[in-house]
Amino acid sequence: MRVSVYRKEHFNAAHRLYNNEWSEDENYAVFGKCSSPNYHGHNYELVVKVTGEIDTKTGYVMDMKKLSDIIGEHVLKKFDHKNLNLDTEEFKQLNPTVENIAVVIWNILKHKMDPSLQLKVILYETERNYAEYPAD
Amino acid sequence: MRVSVYRKEHFNAAHRLYNNEWSEDENYAVFGKCSSPNYHGHNYELVVKVTGEIDTKTGYVMDMKKLSDIIGEHVLKKFDHKNLNLDTEEFKQLNPTVENIAVVIWNILKHKMDPSLQLKVILYETERNYAEYPAD
Amino acid sequence: MRVSVYRKEHFNAAHRLYNNEWSEDENYAVFGKCSSPNYHGHNYELVVKVTGEIDTKTGYVMDMKKLSDIIGEHVLKKFDHKNLNLDTEEFKQLNPTVENIAVVIWNILKHKMDPSLQLKVILYETERNYAEYPAD
Amino acid sequence: MRVSVYRKEHFNAAHRLYNNEWSEDENYAVFGKCSSPNYHGHNYELVVKVTGEIDTKTGYVMDMKKLSDIIGEHVLKKFDHKNLNLDTEEFKQLNPTVENIAVVIWNILKHKMDPSLQLKVILYETERNYAEYPAD
Amino acid sequence: MRVSVYRKEHFNAAHRLYNNEWSEDENYAVFGKCSSPNYHGHNYELVVKVTGEIDTKTGYVMDMKKLSDIIGEHVLKKFDHKNLNLDTEEFKQLNPTVENIAVVIWNILKHKMDPSLQLKVILYETERNYAEYPAD
Amino acid sequence: MRVSVYRKEHFNAAHRLYNNEWSEDENYAVFGKCSSPNYHGHNYELVVKVTGEIDTKTGYVMDMKKLSDIIGEHVLKKFDHKNLNLDTEEFKQLNPTVENIAVVIWNILKHKMDPSLQLKVILYETERNYAEYPAD
Repeated sequence: MRVSVYRKEHFNAAHRLYNNEWSEDENYAVFGKCSSPNYHGHNYELVVKVTGEIDTKTGYVMDMKKLSDIIGEHVLKKFDHKNLNLDTEEFKQLNPTVENIAVVIWNILKHKMDPSLQLKVILYETERNYAEYPAD
Repeated sequence: MRVSVYRKEHFNAAHRLYNNEWSEDENYAVFGKCSSPNYHGHNYELVVKVTGEIDTKTGYVMDMKKLSDIIGEHVLKKFDHKNLNLDTEEFKQLNPTVENIAVVIWNILKHKMDPSLQLKVILYETERNYAEYPAD
Repeated sequence: MRVSVYRKEHFNAAHRLYNNEWSEDENYAVFGKCSSPNYHGHNYELVVKVTGEIDTKTGYVMDMKKLSDIIGEHVLKKFDHKNLNLDTEEFKQLNPTVENIAVVIWNILKHKMDPSLQLKVILYETERNYAEYPAD
Repeated sequence: MRVSVYRKEHFNAAHRLYNNEWSEDENYAVFGKCSSPNYHGHNYELVVKVTGEIDTKTGYVMDMKKLSDIIGEHVLKKFDHKNLNLDTEEFKQLNPTVENIAVVIWNILKHKMDPSLQLKVILYETERNYAEYPAD
Repeated sequence: MRVSVYRKEHFNAAHRLYNNEWSEDENYAVFGKCSSPNYHGHNYELVVKVTGEIDTKTGYVMDMKKLSDIIGEHVLKKFDHKNLNLDTEEFKQLNPTVENIAVVIWNILKHKMDPSLQLKVILYETERNYAEYPAD
Repeated sequence: MRVSVYRKEHFNAAHRLYNNEWSEDENYAVFGKCSSPNYHGHNYELVVKVTGEIDTKTGYVMDMKKLSDIIGEHVLKKFDHKNLNLDTEEFKQLNPTVENIAVVIWNILKHKMDPSLQLKVILYETERNYAEYPAD
């Protein structure tokens, strides 16, 4: 009786899309205004999906309060009100596209969770652009 | 050519998270304010997903009006404006977590639907906490 | 240069609509399923609107963090995960309609705020039913 | 490292549900007010999901700007501010249910996309009725 | 102690923007694709705001169930799943812009309501275009 | 017969809250993580409200397409995908709080609009924090 539970959190961050190995012009050609040199930003909505068996004593797959605390401690503290390119180790070299941020968050959370639980990350950069990792 | 269709409904209910075999203190230790003795409540948003072949005459996988009627008759009539712990047979013993409510609704609907159709239930307890059964 | 700022918070509570001076049947005749004896509940969305001059040093009408703390301390702590009829002094006699809850919250907050600021409360009982006090 | 990216667009269209081989009465018996002879309409919200590997140079599965342009050129130009039954070849014979429209849009987009990318279409006819093709 | 209460309903309709006294070309010059000859359509979200004193017996400004019934009987029955230009008396001559529809709905409802209550109509044609009548 | 029409647009920008006359520590004491030195960012949702008489020929208070073009040309081009503190003249000295940004946008738009129309700006920094200028 496997069930998925979802917890939605959010953080606000600045970023620019940028490949260090390219010139500014090349970056602009590929990323357009998303490579604007002084950064822009987003209200990121983060949905974490956890799949597992329901614990018969609690009725929980996982205590959403604990999941929220893990996300707060290991993801929000790192990314909220930060410049992803300048303030984080993860995106010093890696381009902070919504795809890459989703993968990075999945890797952070994976190590903090009970390994019997399956994990997925859905990240909204805007209401109209979002990513999911891993793909089904 | 299998397609999924989704129908969203809602109901308002009171509940508390509570394991009958534990003391009030043990319940509070596990469920926190969700075990508050006089109940609290939610606007539950219920999404029912039905997967099957498109009927070539109607263009429907299933008439959403009929699905809405089935949900109304067998789910909303039972749970809407009710206290899940006190007013329903289903949660007299079973803890009404969002996971358990999703499973219970799936079991109710499964028996009312054409068995050739695949069924999934997504239940929002709040905009930020929700569950899906069965898991993919 | 008067500006309004808005802060949205939420709480989950149980209630029933009920006039103590009426019989159960009279209550049912007026309030229908909203008078269901064992309570039902809602995800209340609370919007607090504060109007005043922008402080030229901070650029704030009011620090939204402080407004959020005041709402948390004086409104959410009192109503979140509670039964409005049973657990609160305010609704022991007063019927907890969305109109009355909005007025009660306004009165609570009014005394905690700088009197030079104008205050309005908008309270969503559901996405489709909400109230505003005071009226424009 | 397969990731899914989603792009949301919208279009406004008129339609009626109607099977050409049936009488008006038969259509009304099956489709109710959705077969109203002079058409009604919807704000369709279209979500296109694309799954593939992240390109290590760009950090993209696919440039969402390009996906948006493809949707605009091949879907929105065809359906936006149109009468699906009268103005489009696709629905001259085919009943424009949300299921059928989703399949039609998938077929249009499939031919415009890199074949290594997996494609899914989710189409909202209203906030409460939507369809997904192909099913998982 | 005047309070405003709001009730949200919806209807789906087809329309085109069109001035009968102008040629098709003039209409296209002014209304663009909104004058598309075979109509397009929308999911209209209708918010009705009612302002008055709280009745001390019920705690209501107005029973939202009764307001919903009035809207259903006098507005939705007339406009839902209809072509506003062809199927309604109101828009045979009058251009069904969101502004004009809001005014028409206000006039319909005004005559069905207790005259001591103040009435306002907010009508969403899309999430991004809406109108309010009367203006504050 | 005055009616208000609303048009919603959005832009993504980086900013930090900062008073040039204060030290970093003073800024942190007042603005907390919102003064984070390398900026953070938001998806700003901008609602522009225009009030006036309905033109009897068009049924419009104002052509929303023209309003959208004015906002695009004079607001979005200036602020979208920009760093408000570094890239704009307006916020070189002025702290880019949501209150101040709303006032700045109102001043920009006021000069581009027919003076007979009344103008209001509502700006969402997040779903939970927003501002309105001028206040009612």
